[in-house]
Amino acid sequence: MNFSRAPGFTGSRIDRADNLRLDEARIATFLGDLKARLLRLEVLDPVLAEDGRLAWGAMTELAEGVTPLFLGLDGGRPLFAPLVRLAPGATQAWSVFGLIDRMEGADAALWATARSLIEWHNRHGFCSVCGEPSEIFRAGWARKCGDCGAEHFPRVDPVVIMLAEHGGKVLVGRGINYPPRRYSALAGFVEPGESIEEAVARELFEEAGVRATSVRYVASQPWPFPASLMIACIAEVESDRVAIDRTELADAVWVDRAQVKAALAGRPDAPFQAPPHFAIANTLLSRWLHRF
Amino acid sequence: MNFSRAPGFTGSRIDRADNLRLDEARIATFLGDLKARLLRLEVLDPVLAEDGRLAWGAMTELAEGVTPLFLGLDGGRPLFAPLVRLAPGATQAWSVFGLIDRMEGADAALWATARSLIEWHNRHGFCSVCGEPSEIFRAGWARKCGDCGAEHFPRVDPVVIMLAEHGGKVLVGRGINYPPRRYSALAGFVEPGESIEEAVARELFEEAGVRATSVRYVASQPWPFPASLMIACIAEVESDRVAIDRTELADAVWVDRAQVKAALAGRPDAPFQAPPHFAIANTLLSRWLHRF
Repeated sequence: MNFSRAPGFTGSRIDRADNLRLDEARIATFLGDLKARLLRLEVLDPVLAEDGRLAWGAMTELAEGVTPLFLGLDGGRPLFAPLVRLAPGATQAWSVFGLIDRMEGADAALWATARSLIEWHNRHGFCSVCGEPSEIFRAGWARKCGDCGAEHFPRVDPVVIMLAEHGGKVLVGRGINYPPRRYSALAGFVEPGESIEEAVARELFEEAGVRATSVRYVASQPWPFPASLMIACIAEVESDRVAIDRTELADAVWVDRAQVKAALAGRPDAPFQAPPHFAIANTLLSRWLHRF
Repeated sequence: MNFSRAPGFTGSRIDRADNLRLDEARIATFLGDLKARLLRLEVLDPVLAEDGRLAWGAMTELAEGVTPLFLGLDGGRPLFAPLVRLAPGATQAWSVFGLIDRMEGADAALWATARSLIEWHNRHGFCSVCGEPSEIFRAGWARKCGDCGAEHFPRVDPVVIMLAEHGGKVLVGRGINYPPRRYSALAGFVEPGESIEEAVARELFEEAGVRATSVRYVASQPWPFPASLMIACIAEVESDRVAIDRTELADAVWVDRAQVKAALAGRPDAPFQAPPHFAIANTLLSRWLHRF
């Protein structure tokens, strides 16, 4: 696969070795393997080594009572992440964006996988079917209820993120809690019973009052806050008349190619601040500029 | 939007009216509205009227103690589905495929939405964070824990479904439990920490031993068994040498355009039976034939 200009959090080169997850003997061997490595984390945030790469330790660093999650094989080297216990109701500190900004894609992808898994386990200690405690299985990739036997798999929540396009301009919006001057693509969760294209059309109409006439897929990325699959699209819309849903957006404006170019270049005279390079909204603006 | 040749379960024309879900007074008014309609279901299966359309009843048909789920507005008419209680461990009867085969897309889409929501509520009566019972809110589009306050939203599980392409042929496979002669596109769940393109490449390698060199998105559909978002792609692969994972597939074969054409036409001399028209694997084969 050609991962040049790849979206953020993609490009991991490890083998997830899904076929070994149920093989308890192999996983036990990996845990005792001197080559095995444990991801170092500061709660959920990555720890970076001096060379800017993810920091890893020996398996002996695993604290008493902490479950190792099997991330996969890097060549012959088994990689694990510790199932960190999170304080209930702890909120995300966005300072992690400064670290992600410095990480290479493959490292960010591997950390994103670990982060999503860890957060899912923390929110799924109990069986949603019967309320009894559930247990980890598949080396960290599922949980099983000890009481009713229900199996539960990590959530991945598909989200559409899109630019409306009309007359050579695209629509960017400001979420209510965005940093000053930041504008980005509009976005929303895909609901049960709709396609990607329908979710794009629905969200554009709900948030900005614009009617999509066609939707084109552009790219995708995982987004580990906590576990979204971001699906980036460009939608032609009937008209440039917008009606903003003020519960979702503080503002939305049409921008042309020169303005997008200035924003992506980070120029001080740009009319808005673009989303960070590792957010697919950045990729989307860049692909639109270069006609995909 | 142009929904001609649309994938199955797409094309619903109702307004989901997401902005009204939290408005308890409005929802209560809808429940008492003589124009409101309740979806008729046989457990989870659709009931079809004589004209082949979905059958609907008055809200007075709602059985004692059954919660109505708000599907949205059809013009000014509020539509609800009953939150049917499912027997634990009940399995899907595939006889429903005969009904779906006869339904128009918009009806199938609306029923699919109801089916996915109902099944999700049945499997999520308890809070996964703390194990206490959770309550329905947002008119059926979420649950909230009465104890810890955690909010839970319906799952939508993204699945990649894809044709490997090499030398003018595509690879179709037989799942272990497929009906005789049925072949379809390969498929698998997107995992935390991967993009659509990475999931396609991983699944093709895991199931068939083929290495993707490029991945193109084609189309998507919701699949209500129980709540998948099917993301259909075509991937060029390095070589036509396959190594089948026998735990997943009974067989996989390369087929050319004439063979795909015969299968889609349902010709008796076709080398395989194509998936049903409402499955996106059918759309995918058809789009490949017509070069998207």
